Amino acid sequence: MSDHFIPTQPDDAAEKPVVKAALIIIGDEILSGRTKDANLAYLAKWLNGEGIRLDEVRVIPDDTNRIVDHVNSCRRQFDYVFTTGGIGPTHDDITAESIAQAFAVPLHFHPEAMALLEAHYPPGEFTQARQRMARVPEGGSLIDNPVSVAPGFQIENVFVLAGVPLIMQSMLESIRHKLVGGLPMLSASLSVPVPESALAGDLGLIAKAHPDVQIGSYPYYREGRAGLHVVVRALDQALIDRALREIEAAVRRFGAEPVRDPREG
Amino acid sequence: MSDHFIPTQPDDAAEKPVVKAALIIIGDEILSGRTKDANLAYLAKWLNGEGIRLDEVRVIPDDTNRIVDHVNSCRRQFDYVFTTGGIGPTHDDITAESIAQAFAVPLHFHPEAMALLEAHYPPGEFTQARQRMARVPEGGSLIDNPVSVAPGFQIENVFVLAGVPLIMQSMLESIRHKLVGGLPMLSASLSVPVPESALAGDLGLIAKAHPDVQIGSYPYYREGRAGLHVVVRALDQALIDRALREIEAAVRRFGAEPVRDPREG
Repeated sequence: MSDHFIPTQPDDAAEKPVVKAALIIIGDEILSGRTKDANLAYLAKWLNGEGIRLDEVRVIPDDTNRIVDHVNSCRRQFDYVFTTGGIGPTHDDITAESIAQAFAVPLHFHPEAMALLEAHYPPGEFTQARQRMARVPEGGSLIDNPVSVAPGFQIENVFVLAGVPLIMQSMLESIRHKLVGGLPMLSASLSVPVPESALAGDLGLIAKAHPDVQIGSYPYYREGRAGLHVVVRALDQALIDRALREIEAAVRRFGAEPVRDPREG
Repeated sequence: MSDHFIPTQPDDAAEKPVVKAALIIIGDEILSGRTKDANLAYLAKWLNGEGIRLDEVRVIPDDTNRIVDHVNSCRRQFDYVFTTGGIGPTHDDITAESIAQAFAVPLHFHPEAMALLEAHYPPGEFTQARQRMARVPEGGSLIDNPVSVAPGFQIENVFVLAGVPLIMQSMLESIRHKLVGGLPMLSASLSVPVPESALAGDLGLIAKAHPDVQIGSYPYYREGRAGLHVVVRALDQALIDRALREIEAAVRRFGAEPVRDPREG
């Protein structure tokens, strides 16, 4: 399959499925708390723009068996799987061999990747360590890295990306044309200067009356005052607007004024 | 690790186990990219201070079946499981009932939680929605919430915490005495103004020569220049120091000067 993996899609937009993705963050440095992950939120928003919902994230250590297990469980469960991290030149970069093991295929030096990297380094400096970055599981195709040359790769529905955010982001642009999305989830949100527990009863009733709308409630504390953000999500803007108006009316019954948050990018 | 870390180990150190934890972040708002999680890195560092290693994180939607599956798989696989999110008063706060379902026990209004919350609200304002926050699976014990009263709970090796970082952090202080750690992982790191792929060969050899030391290599790009952080981790400070000196010597062979990063908090 490699390049040509496409989740089945009906023609009719109304019947477009919800397309779901998982992200596997490979990295001891995230689990130790040393590095804060910056890829989850970026990927989530980027995927939503493509009509793909990020539906699960797993953060796992640099350990071959763990990578194999999680890649295999996710690639069967989700339409797309993205991994970040572990594709550099050092001994702790074990993602490529782990993915090969997950798919039970050999790991090869990819000729195109070898050529790209060899051309990138000064003569004689394409060392053994750097050649590690050209290793791709059999059946995999390269993912362009416009930032620092060393490519990622795709095998079936698994996209293996760099962990450095700038590189990860550039690789996403390289694969945009390979992804087939479904309906994008639309959303709007309100800031409400009322404690969450006061509005909870109304929100529950409104949520029950609008089964096709997801209503999320996220409390905040600001300068010692409790309030909440209400996030309304649906596949249809008209459904969102209807629910929003009911929530606004409920907030006003508390004598408070809800504020529509600026639309997110 | 505090400033006052003393590198000597207790006598029984060699027999202390490595204790591992998983974190399950429950929240559509994290998966949509709307909210950036702030609990992972905090919990990772806090647990390390208790001699517990955060070994896996899963971010999952507000969905009962998913919560049940992940809680059940993690509580068998890890010494401790922490969940964050979904214990507030609104309709989308489904963690308590989902945990009850995972343990196949009924969900009750916990009398002590009812009393705490009833005392907290003005007379007549302890509404049905607010009473949701007193629901605890049978067999669970309360986790104090010094910030906003509504408690978390513990059932067996699963600790159910709030998602709001300030509250989550205060709940951790409430359970510190309940956790039994093993050996804390010690670490030190170097900033190296050399491209990662140049140092990769040396790092691989040093890693091979020090099997009890984890050597992680994390590239960065700063003002257009490539460098890397090398993070060295081990259960014993002497092992770390020995590996660090070899890495520093390797860096100097490139005519560059490594900088030891300040010890992290």
